[in-house]
Amino acid sequence: AGMAVSPSTHRLLPLFLGLFQGALLLFFALFVTYDKPSAQTEDANLVANQLYGIFPFFQDIQVMLVVGLGLLLTFLPRYGFSALTHNFLLLNFSTQWALVLQGLLHHFHHGQVHLDLHNLLTAEFAAVTVLISVGAVLGRTSPCQLLVVATCEVPVYLASEWAIITRLGVLDVGGTITIHVFSCYFGLGVSKALFGAAQRPVHPKETPTPRSDLLSLMGTLILWVFWPSFVAVLCQSGDAQHRAFLNTLLAMSASAVTTMVASSLLESDGKLSPGHLQNGSLAGGVAIGAVADMAVPPVAALALGSLSAVACVLGFRFLTPLLARKLALRDQCGIHNLHGLPGILGAAASAVAILVASEDTSGSHFSQVSPTRGNASEASWGQWGDHGAGQQALCQAAGLAVAIGTSLLAGLLTGAALRLPCLARPPERLCFDDSLYFKIQDQAENLGPGDTAEEGALALKERV
Amino acid sequence: AGMAVSPSTHRLLPLFLGLFQGALLLFFALFVTYDKPSAQTEDANLVANQLYGIFPFFQDIQVMLVVGLGLLLTFLPRYGFSALTHNFLLLNFSTQWALVLQGLLHHFHHGQVHLDLHNLLTAEFAAVTVLISVGAVLGRTSPCQLLVVATCEVPVYLASEWAIITRLGVLDVGGTITIHVFSCYFGLGVSKALFGAAQRPVHPKETPTPRSDLLSLMGTLILWVFWPSFVAVLCQSGDAQHRAFLNTLLAMSASAVTTMVASSLLESDGKLSPGHLQNGSLAGGVAIGAVADMAVPPVAALALGSLSAVACVLGFRFLTPLLARKLALRDQCGIHNLHGLPGILGAAASAVAILVASEDTSGSHFSQVSPTRGNASEASWGQWGDHGAGQQALCQAAGLAVAIGTSLLAGLLTGAALRLPCLARPPERLCFDDSLYFKIQDQAENLGPGDTAEEGALALKERV
Amino acid sequence: AGMAVSPSTHRLLPLFLGLFQGALLLFFALFVTYDKPSAQTEDANLVANQLYGIFPFFQDIQVMLVVGLGLLLTFLPRYGFSALTHNFLLLNFSTQWALVLQGLLHHFHHGQVHLDLHNLLTAEFAAVTVLISVGAVLGRTSPCQLLVVATCEVPVYLASEWAIITRLGVLDVGGTITIHVFSCYFGLGVSKALFGAAQRPVHPKETPTPRSDLLSLMGTLILWVFWPSFVAVLCQSGDAQHRAFLNTLLAMSASAVTTMVASSLLESDGKLSPGHLQNGSLAGGVAIGAVADMAVPPVAALALGSLSAVACVLGFRFLTPLLARKLALRDQCGIHNLHGLPGILGAAASAVAILVASEDTSGSHFSQVSPTRGNASEASWGQWGDHGAGQQALCQAAGLAVAIGTSLLAGLLTGAALRLPCLARPPERLCFDDSLYFKIQDQAENLGPGDTAEEGALALKERV
Repeated sequence: AGMAVSPSTHRLLPLFLGLFQGALLLFFALFVTYDKPSAQTEDANLVANQLYGIFPFFQDIQVMLVVGLGLLLTFLPRYGFSALTHNFLLLNFSTQWALVLQGLLHHFHHGQVHLDLHNLLTAEFAAVTVLISVGAVLGRTSPCQLLVVATCEVPVYLASEWAIITRLGVLDVGGTITIHVFSCYFGLGVSKALFGAAQRPVHPKETPTPRSDLLSLMGTLILWVFWPSFVAVLCQSGDAQHRAFLNTLLAMSASAVTTMVASSLLESDGKLSPGHLQNGSLAGGVAIGAVADMAVPPVAALALGSLSAVACVLGFRFLTPLLARKLALRDQCGIHNLHGLPGILGAAASAVAILVASEDTSGSHFSQVSPTRGNASEASWGQWGDHGAGQQALCQAAGLAVAIGTSLLAGLLTGAALRLPCLARPPERLCFDDSLYFKIQDQAENLGPGDTAEEGALALKERV
Repeated sequence: AGMAVSPSTHRLLPLFLGLFQGALLLFFALFVTYDKPSAQTEDANLVANQLYGIFPFFQDIQVMLVVGLGLLLTFLPRYGFSALTHNFLLLNFSTQWALVLQGLLHHFHHGQVHLDLHNLLTAEFAAVTVLISVGAVLGRTSPCQLLVVATCEVPVYLASEWAIITRLGVLDVGGTITIHVFSCYFGLGVSKALFGAAQRPVHPKETPTPRSDLLSLMGTLILWVFWPSFVAVLCQSGDAQHRAFLNTLLAMSASAVTTMVASSLLESDGKLSPGHLQNGSLAGGVAIGAVADMAVPPVAALALGSLSAVACVLGFRFLTPLLARKLALRDQCGIHNLHGLPGILGAAASAVAILVASEDTSGSHFSQVSPTRGNASEASWGQWGDHGAGQQALCQAAGLAVAIGTSLLAGLLTGAALRLPCLARPPERLCFDDSLYFKIQDQAENLGPGDTAEEGALALKERV
Repeated sequence: AGMAVSPSTHRLLPLFLGLFQGALLLFFALFVTYDKPSAQTEDANLVANQLYGIFPFFQDIQVMLVVGLGLLLTFLPRYGFSALTHNFLLLNFSTQWALVLQGLLHHFHHGQVHLDLHNLLTAEFAAVTVLISVGAVLGRTSPCQLLVVATCEVPVYLASEWAIITRLGVLDVGGTITIHVFSCYFGLGVSKALFGAAQRPVHPKETPTPRSDLLSLMGTLILWVFWPSFVAVLCQSGDAQHRAFLNTLLAMSASAVTTMVASSLLESDGKLSPGHLQNGSLAGGVAIGAVADMAVPPVAALALGSLSAVACVLGFRFLTPLLARKLALRDQCGIHNLHGLPGILGAAASAVAILVASEDTSGSHFSQVSPTRGNASEASWGQWGDHGAGQQALCQAAGLAVAIGTSLLAGLLTGAALRLPCLARPPERLCFDDSLYFKIQDQAENLGPGDTAEEGALALKERV
């Protein structure tokens, strides 16, 4: 009984979701159609080739978000089912919500919204920001609160992305600034406003077990494998995309090795921390996004991957405890270490790369750059042609500032909204537990001897 | 000793499988060759492009069947190894068996059977029906019995698919009727004939644990991600395939969200049932198959996905217990809720879509429809051109009736055959246990303290 | 305290890895660039198509190595985290190391090394040999020792591959001889030289549990699904690649079924051994590599798959215990059964196929063979054109001998080097335990009642 949500609130989730699905159906019924077939493109082969060009990337990204990211979040030993399910729900809800908003904003011509795989992809990118942000409050929030976060974050992301890519002409093909930095500070804002200044001790269900750490590491590995598709999907096909793949592969390889070095050096007994591995190995992928398709030399990708891994591990070791102590800031998954610090590094690297390239060969390297993410290719490209490398570097910095500022502010406001009593935040005692939301037998109720008898017997032998 | 199969029967599996492999080798040695290289197709690039067109889908489908479906079946806590292995065995056995039968039936020209990736794919679709059907009797059947099911089901499927697609000209690119509905009622027939009218209490090993539910959910998510490839692989490339992707993505996204709404509304305390999530999220993919490549508006895909999720959840909540009580029908995995109900919905939707489309624009929408599944494209297309939309809608209904009738009858006969004593059905007491078939230490034998000591300690703290 | 590495050695890992990363950065900074864009290839579409041709295979192979192989190694119940992490570390380290060596050896023109996806792929193949070899000493070696193995094995592999493919002109598109046989005997050499002649009893943590067996089987299934990409990635696109896919699919399907037959026949009670399934199902993929793109009839692929599965299972049942008894040879993962025996079978099959084909139709079948692995296509092709089928068959045998001889010798030397005291081999008592290398709570320390209470309760019910 103690594990039940109060009766007044447990109808909120289906009500909210049901109404949203109804509104979505209405919106689609009134406005949305598929692209006209064969009218624009005479050649069916061309359509097929375009599809084959984007579809494998799309599937890779789906695997990353649904399986990889979901598993990464299962490090809380009793919250694995919730982590996977809430991640899955938020991905679907946010993508649908972004489709509606994108339709209203960009594609509203002649009363109809045209839908194709490219739209779905950009909507999914908007959803990614939500999935990252809620990592800061994982396990302490109700599904209703998570849906409110998604509802607020998606429009702010779309506005911020428009300002950064279309207005400022920032180059960020892999979403380093627009996705990773943005979602990180949005999440931290939510966490700060939601939990306030209270310091709380470690929750007994917060500590990973060997098994949950293993599942989470599997998530990391899946993300690591498919990350190049995430970075390169919106690149101009050809050289730029090839380069984006290679840069991402190099950066992530360097991250993986450097994480082990850094984690091992930081601990007195040389043992590696699972959390460092789970996050640091991915830091290079976050940082490389802003420079992935630029004509940087391979060593730059390696160096950026190494640096961001070091930043991530140092962040876990020193910055997260510091923020918790000084600002009472909770960051359950350490999104600031995985998305914030490497994202800022990546933004800085993009500015440096632009300056260095223009000194080298007066910018001829950059004839391959294709800032197609955000449909701003011509605009930003033309701008840079006009205002030169120095100004483009400033733009990158301005983009970073806009991303941080917008997201922190919007996150704080969203977090304040989450304190509404109707949103059913779980009491501290019931946090981090699947049985609050799912019909899963409570693991603590009927205690009996362990099932994994071999291991039990093994443990006994060890003791004797 | 109590856990051993009787000596007279435990040689049956290798005997049966070994003889089959021998016969397969003989058949291949005598008749099967690869397609002649470069003779028909002058351009090697063309071959390469065709291969690149189909191979990514093929791999996606392999992941679905081997990993995704296998994991989905691991919800029985002590039967995970058997579920994965039997699924893997049945996939291979049934595909080989379907290759032989297809070779005999379709491709027997000039004494030689030509084998290519397309043949393998259609053989694998035949195997899918077996994998789905045996879900109804999961955990209560011996591997020998499962092989008998496969042996009987594959030829019936091939006959039924020929009747439905080639003779009746039914449009069903994603296999909604020919695969999902067929396999569901075949499985239910087997279960009914095998277990008879006996009512039995819940088996103690039948209840999922948090861990097995988590693994099963991972299977669901993998299936969910790759499902569009399953639906679209046999579409005409170009617009039709693009539309099939988008329709499937929309339907499955709507299913995922609607499942949460429906599951939450049905339970008194608002908690979600893991079983609902594991199945309902996929219901849209089952239902969309029959209309995926038709020129339906996007809202239709969303609506169909939502409806089928509701049907699936309601089925789990009300229909399955009802069938168990009234008909003593056991459906271990709930295949009637995931494949039967959404399949019927999808068939109905295809008839409606055909009627509506013909009213709209006198059928011009359908110039994109390409019923290539089952090699019947020209035939069925020509037929429909002749007999009009009304008759085509009737055909869809007739196809559904043929699928249900054939499969129920054949399933009942197969189930009766499974009662042969030599097939070694496990006694009730030994059901749902890996240690009956695998050299895995019996989990109940040597009880000792649990190995996952952190979680144990945590549980203790909770209690105090 | 007993679980800590001694202070003098636990700094060795970060030191070694850190120095290597520094050297790698220096090498890349001085020498490595990407291929010039668009200079050689006028058409950007062409680049894009080449990329789309290779990238899906590359991703499949990454999934195999990072996720599939990693999971396969988690059968040691308390060593799962280490198995996954060490596999991941070795993959990255060895690929980087192979990139450096390949750059120095092959691509050093005009002071610059050109890097593209193809180079990365061949570097990753070099890394595969390391990942396979260390399976022989899994759980008994420190990360430092593993890195020394990688450091020694990669250059020897590159030399051996050059000798076998470029000098001898051996046909081995799937790496049967150059990768699988080589890495197997290298690993056995290391194991023999490292552990000497001491016979030791079974370690209590060496026995798989149901849960670890399940995870390991998942790894097998992932490897099984993606294996065709590994074999076919370096084939000439078109007919040869299509044939390589089909041959691999058939061989692995036959392996999966035959493994069950063989495993079931070998045990007195007809129960299947998890270890047989985890390895035997993959044996066909190992063996088919040398003949995959040859114009062999489909039945040959089936037969080879079946034979190699039988060899693998027989190896586990009889050969491994024999070698352990007579030679005190430890082979923790049974790499001799999965990579050695099927590899030798595959090499023999390639010789037979060449002889038979030349008798059949005076070699015209082989106009499709394209030994592009190892950049030796023209050379070896021309040679064979010259020296005829008999000599080519001899070459295959010679290649096998070179692979076994080189690898055994180099492995023994490497194993001797691993006995250096500074390399921190874990004492026997602390083997097979994650907590030696990772900040994971020791599973044996604070014993309490099991967490998975449902299963515990279930176990109790069973007992009563």
